[in-house]
Amino acid sequence: MKHILIIGAGRSTTALIQYLLSHAASQQWKLTIADADFSLAQSKAGGHSSATAVELNAMNAELRQGLVKQSDLVVSMLPPKLHIEVAKDCLLYKKQLVNASYTSAAVQSMDHEVKAAGLTFMCEIGLDPGIDHMSAMLLLDEIREKGGEVTAFRSYTGGLVAPEHDDNPWHYKFSWAPRNVVLAGQGTAQYIENGQLRFIPYHRVFEQIRPIEVPGAGAWEAYANRNSLAYIPIYGLQDVPTLIRGTIRGTGFCSAWNCLIKLGMTDDLFLIPNAAEMTYKQLMKCLTFGGKGGVRDQVARVCGLPATSVELDKLEWLGLFSDEKIGIKTGSPADVLEKLLLDKWKLGDNEKDMIIMQHEIEYMQREQRKFVTSTLIQEGSNSTDTAMSRLVGLPMGIFIRHLLSGHPVPKGVVIPIQAEVYKPVLKELSEYGVSFKEYVMNY
Amino acid sequence: MKHILIIGAGRSTTALIQYLLSHAASQQWKLTIADADFSLAQSKAGGHSSATAVELNAMNAELRQGLVKQSDLVVSMLPPKLHIEVAKDCLLYKKQLVNASYTSAAVQSMDHEVKAAGLTFMCEIGLDPGIDHMSAMLLLDEIREKGGEVTAFRSYTGGLVAPEHDDNPWHYKFSWAPRNVVLAGQGTAQYIENGQLRFIPYHRVFEQIRPIEVPGAGAWEAYANRNSLAYIPIYGLQDVPTLIRGTIRGTGFCSAWNCLIKLGMTDDLFLIPNAAEMTYKQLMKCLTFGGKGGVRDQVARVCGLPATSVELDKLEWLGLFSDEKIGIKTGSPADVLEKLLLDKWKLGDNEKDMIIMQHEIEYMQREQRKFVTSTLIQEGSNSTDTAMSRLVGLPMGIFIRHLLSGHPVPKGVVIPIQAEVYKPVLKELSEYGVSFKEYVMNY
Repeated sequence: MKHILIIGAGRSTTALIQYLLSHAASQQWKLTIADADFSLAQSKAGGHSSATAVELNAMNAELRQGLVKQSDLVVSMLPPKLHIEVAKDCLLYKKQLVNASYTSAAVQSMDHEVKAAGLTFMCEIGLDPGIDHMSAMLLLDEIREKGGEVTAFRSYTGGLVAPEHDDNPWHYKFSWAPRNVVLAGQGTAQYIENGQLRFIPYHRVFEQIRPIEVPGAGAWEAYANRNSLAYIPIYGLQDVPTLIRGTIRGTGFCSAWNCLIKLGMTDDLFLIPNAAEMTYKQLMKCLTFGGKGGVRDQVARVCGLPATSVELDKLEWLGLFSDEKIGIKTGSPADVLEKLLLDKWKLGDNEKDMIIMQHEIEYMQREQRKFVTSTLIQEGSNSTDTAMSRLVGLPMGIFIRHLLSGHPVPKGVVIPIQAEVYKPVLKELSEYGVSFKEYVMNY
Repeated sequence: MKHILIIGAGRSTTALIQYLLSHAASQQWKLTIADADFSLAQSKAGGHSSATAVELNAMNAELRQGLVKQSDLVVSMLPPKLHIEVAKDCLLYKKQLVNASYTSAAVQSMDHEVKAAGLTFMCEIGLDPGIDHMSAMLLLDEIREKGGEVTAFRSYTGGLVAPEHDDNPWHYKFSWAPRNVVLAGQGTAQYIENGQLRFIPYHRVFEQIRPIEVPGAGAWEAYANRNSLAYIPIYGLQDVPTLIRGTIRGTGFCSAWNCLIKLGMTDDLFLIPNAAEMTYKQLMKCLTFGGKGGVRDQVARVCGLPATSVELDKLEWLGLFSDEKIGIKTGSPADVLEKLLLDKWKLGDNEKDMIIMQHEIEYMQREQRKFVTSTLIQEGSNSTDTAMSRLVGLPMGIFIRHLLSGHPVPKGVVIPIQAEVYKPVLKELSEYGVSFKEYVMNY
């Protein structure tokens, strides 16, 4: 009997828990699903005989450690900054750890000790990061095996709304944590293109975008996603002139979002005074420098755009120029924006989300210049069984089964870039219909 | 015998230590001057019989606490984020505390305990914050005593270079911590003007500037300084339609500095890869999005300015378009900028700095609209005996003498807004030639 502890039962865990429960009897697993919201944990356990729901405030170290101690493997689905606490527990009690978030410096620094303990802390094994790494490494290793030399690697992923339910001017609805969407891009984006390093501060990330063409899904745009340079050594692409990881959005999204950034609506650094009394229009005025005309004109000037532009239409559609109360007692502009978007960008119960992932790789093979595009497009079934939940949860679940079945896996704090990990995971993913279409062009 | 411990012996402590030493014999004080750099502490002690120099890494809690324990009053001249450690020690060993920095939320939260212990933690008693609070409160209390009602309060301060040594296109040289200049404005500026709240994100703070006219010192400009709204209750100005605190710079400084912000040169969030190999021109290119022309053209496009504009001249004067190595092994763009400016904006040994502080207050008195301007202009003697050091150090020193002489002072975590503090401090400051000129206009 193996005990799996899942800490955090939010939006992205549905498919993971379903996968684990579907194998629980045959694999002799017991699942414990822990969340601060007990009823959420209970609903995810769904009365399954192999699953137990537990109420857990993740900051309660005593209770958390008690649960970790009793398990063989821990899945942390907590907000990224809390992983380190769970990681420390796992090292203390010598338990395996799996999560789908970017590896923080704090967790990475445990690598030596984790290795010494003979443990595996598998991070970045969801969708993005996760499936992107695995599918990229499969392509890159194949190219290298054939003697190809990679000259450009571009990889884009977006969690979007399916075209049939795309009925708002932002072409976006939520299939994952809204807070992450509101704060996306904060920090400095870094990549390299044609041998030129680029460092892009937050206030320009949504300005320096690129159009992308997705076979079967038309035209989109992408903004640079965090620090792409970190993946140069990880992907074994030393001296590659171009490496960019980007996030996909509908055409026109980024320039309108950039207006929200310019205004300071994504600012999470201060609390709005008198928030309880304030309307959206009043908040907008606080974020402008006044002058002639109405609020739309004043906002347009901050954005450096004509008041008639489509970006302003998108802000108006959100209700930002309205006399409605912002309706929070206390909070930052980012909190206000999150609450507003939760309503405006809600994926309806029977609406479908859509994931697009696309790798674009240029390489030289026997003096022939080649270009391969590898594209994954997946739609969800409804607002609970989303493509996002599936593509985050399935790779984790498959890897957990692989690990608990006793297959060899790398030790230490790792991400899924080794063939011994990505091959079995991608193979089983394709059985679930998760597969890429490749187009190769010779120049 | 009273023991005064000074932790940190940097740029701003010269005048404070001189003041304390000049009174040490008559007041029966012993000074301990502690710094990570022992020779610096020694040079500040200057062989004076009442002063002892000590080497102290401020993060060494044991050594630090040992020194705090032996003293009656502690002056923390450490970087702001370290005050909390000293404050905790002072509460533990029941010692008075004085510093010249903005009160952090962490220190402020100790107010109740500090009061209960009968102690005074006097914060914000330097120049800005410090003399600005005291001189403003004197003016405001006088106006209120005469039955006046304040309708607008604007207060500006700048640590600048004296006109006779202003020989660079930025009209700026360093008289205080260069790092604070590089990171100035990060966060969200907040103020109220004509009843309209304004929240300004960092990437617009140096855009939304205002011209100011200083009697006797000509035209300057000011950008909004941090959260002015916090001072509405502190100054007793509830319902005031206008309250702005700003930082003074030479005309043209802000729009050029804004270019550095747009580029990301003040970004302290990531380390530049290959920094050791990189030239300024190469770094600039990393911060642009390329395109036609040379580096100056590319930078101009990021700044949204013609390549011929004076802002670009200022960047070129800094050497940012040159083939010189940035000359650091590892660091952020902010680190590179700090190092460069340390050289370019160095106050020469015999050059003078200049402080300008100006309050502009509008008020109604017996249905008469009045306007008072109160201005302080001070020049230093040379690069060691700066106006900055004097105006930061003297109010601290005077307050310390006042406190140690047994005069009543407010208890708790406080700032110098009470008449029992500001009156004696401002009075003695005027004996050192630190006095304001007032101009009153009736409309």
